[in-house]
Amino acid sequence: MATPTKTIRAIDEHTITGATIEQMSTTSNPRMKHVMEALVRHLHDFAREVDLTPKEWIDGIAFLTAVGQKCTPNRQEFILLSDTLGLSSLVNSLHDKRGLEDSTKSSLLGPFYRQKSPVLKAGESISTTAHKGQDVTLYGRVLDSKGAPVENASVEIWQPDENGDYDLQREADLVDLRGTFHTDADGRYCARSVAPTGYMIPMDGPVGDMIRAQGRHGYRPAHIHFLVGKPGYREVVTALYLGNDVHIDSDTVFGVTESLVTAVKQHDPESPIPNLPAIQFNFTLAAAGEAGMGRVGADPAQIVKK
Amino acid sequence: MATPTKTIRAIDEHTITGATIEQMSTTSNPRMKHVMEALVRHLHDFAREVDLTPKEWIDGIAFLTAVGQKCTPNRQEFILLSDTLGLSSLVNSLHDKRGLEDSTKSSLLGPFYRQKSPVLKAGESISTTAHKGQDVTLYGRVLDSKGAPVENASVEIWQPDENGDYDLQREADLVDLRGTFHTDADGRYCARSVAPTGYMIPMDGPVGDMIRAQGRHGYRPAHIHFLVGKPGYREVVTALYLGNDVHIDSDTVFGVTESLVTAVKQHDPESPIPNLPAIQFNFTLAAAGEAGMGRVGADPAQIVKK
Repeated sequence: MATPTKTIRAIDEHTITGATIEQMSTTSNPRMKHVMEALVRHLHDFAREVDLTPKEWIDGIAFLTAVGQKCTPNRQEFILLSDTLGLSSLVNSLHDKRGLEDSTKSSLLGPFYRQKSPVLKAGESISTTAHKGQDVTLYGRVLDSKGAPVENASVEIWQPDENGDYDLQREADLVDLRGTFHTDADGRYCARSVAPTGYMIPMDGPVGDMIRAQGRHGYRPAHIHFLVGKPGYREVVTALYLGNDVHIDSDTVFGVTESLVTAVKQHDPESPIPNLPAIQFNFTLAAAGEAGMGRVGADPAQIVKK
Repeated sequence: MATPTKTIRAIDEHTITGATIEQMSTTSNPRMKHVMEALVRHLHDFAREVDLTPKEWIDGIAFLTAVGQKCTPNRQEFILLSDTLGLSSLVNSLHDKRGLEDSTKSSLLGPFYRQKSPVLKAGESISTTAHKGQDVTLYGRVLDSKGAPVENASVEIWQPDENGDYDLQREADLVDLRGTFHTDADGRYCARSVAPTGYMIPMDGPVGDMIRAQGRHGYRPAHIHFLVGKPGYREVVTALYLGNDVHIDSDTVFGVTESLVTAVKQHDPESPIPNLPAIQFNFTLAAAGEAGMGRVGADPAQIVKK
């Protein structure tokens, strides 16, 4: 139990922070203690800096409550809030910096990742339904930080279609435009797909209300998600962005980084599938470090179990 | 729409904050713009300071989601979180400081306030069921900041019983130990009640998990809630605390302030009801100022409508 002191009776807008941290001083997990102390300091500094009023406080309570209540096993509104406040992107950057070796930069996992996707062979298509979008090849290599090929790395790919919709948004049980490939002895992967289109984040919840109040467009530029990994290496959760998308420089969730911007080449003599437009990208996997694991994102069903 | 710039492509753990604030720069409400910019700065500073990992981030997302999902029209877990992090107390202190004249200090409204309570006459009891607790008189005056009596001020009182339970916790529709009085020409109010007991905050939700992980006892010292007001004056939301409670110096929600600590006098010749122990307290109402309204708290049914 926290040692009772008389100081707690002299609460004002300054002493409250120390009193709160003192009462949390009995936290047994040192990392939790450190994180929560910093959280309380920054939270209180925020409230003091803006001189937060009771009305604004209750508006904030109501907003956070609505965000929590919007979450379901298929929807994670708190991750969307974190994404739109730039926090997810920041945690990705901190994660990348913590790596011991160079690797492909992280980007957001997003809400449409699912733990299981069909295992396919090199050159097979992840498309399982008819699409009007442009057929493309996705190919390249998975390399280690010294440039050597990584054999048998798993390359999970998922993406929206030519209308900006993921399979799960079209039909709850549909599996389309997602698949898992494995690299060959040269680290090569190759998939067929259709070129994706950018889309608006879900705008029918409290985060959508915030985005509108902030005059933001709510769009993400066209992108294809990749989760690349192999035991002994640091998993790379990332996405490739199409540089010609009108929203490439104003992604609502700050996922775009220069090194992840790519393009569909209409004629690519290097592509393993002749006469098909192609997107080429090489991924770099760093050796696994103890502090280096984890993903900024999750299958929503892993968070809300009802 | 935010002006697209190339800087958004150079996202790292430092540039992300400016990129986020730039994208929010189109917010039409200047106060919302200011508050959200400060929120993003402090949120990002927190994540950078503790070098937040993806695992900790997802734990935080899961925690906030659980807090939101625990809220019902009868329970407000986000207010409880705000209370236990000292934020509610801080917002109260900022609110008090904003007043133009001296007034009684604020304390937490708490989750058991309800908008309607029985209107009673001076000297009547707020108890409607049998209680084993000590009968007490609650009396005093409502004064303005110059010490002049405030006539016909409303004095709403609600409190837990001798077991630390509020009426709503015993039975959903029970009305007991809550009532509204009005002051006489001398500003006097007088109610009969039973002495309350301290109690533990609701510990069966995610906030309870946090409190346990922090080694905190979870108790609030015995107190009686008051909401005192009259048109033209700043409403006072406060509580009186019993100084002999074992948790008086370690309130889990930081509601205790020295000036609100009181005691049951076993013999009080000044009390309007002879031969009954009494708690005496005078409230001071400041004149209403434009920036001075609002309560740190709400009837939970006002926040979650299902």
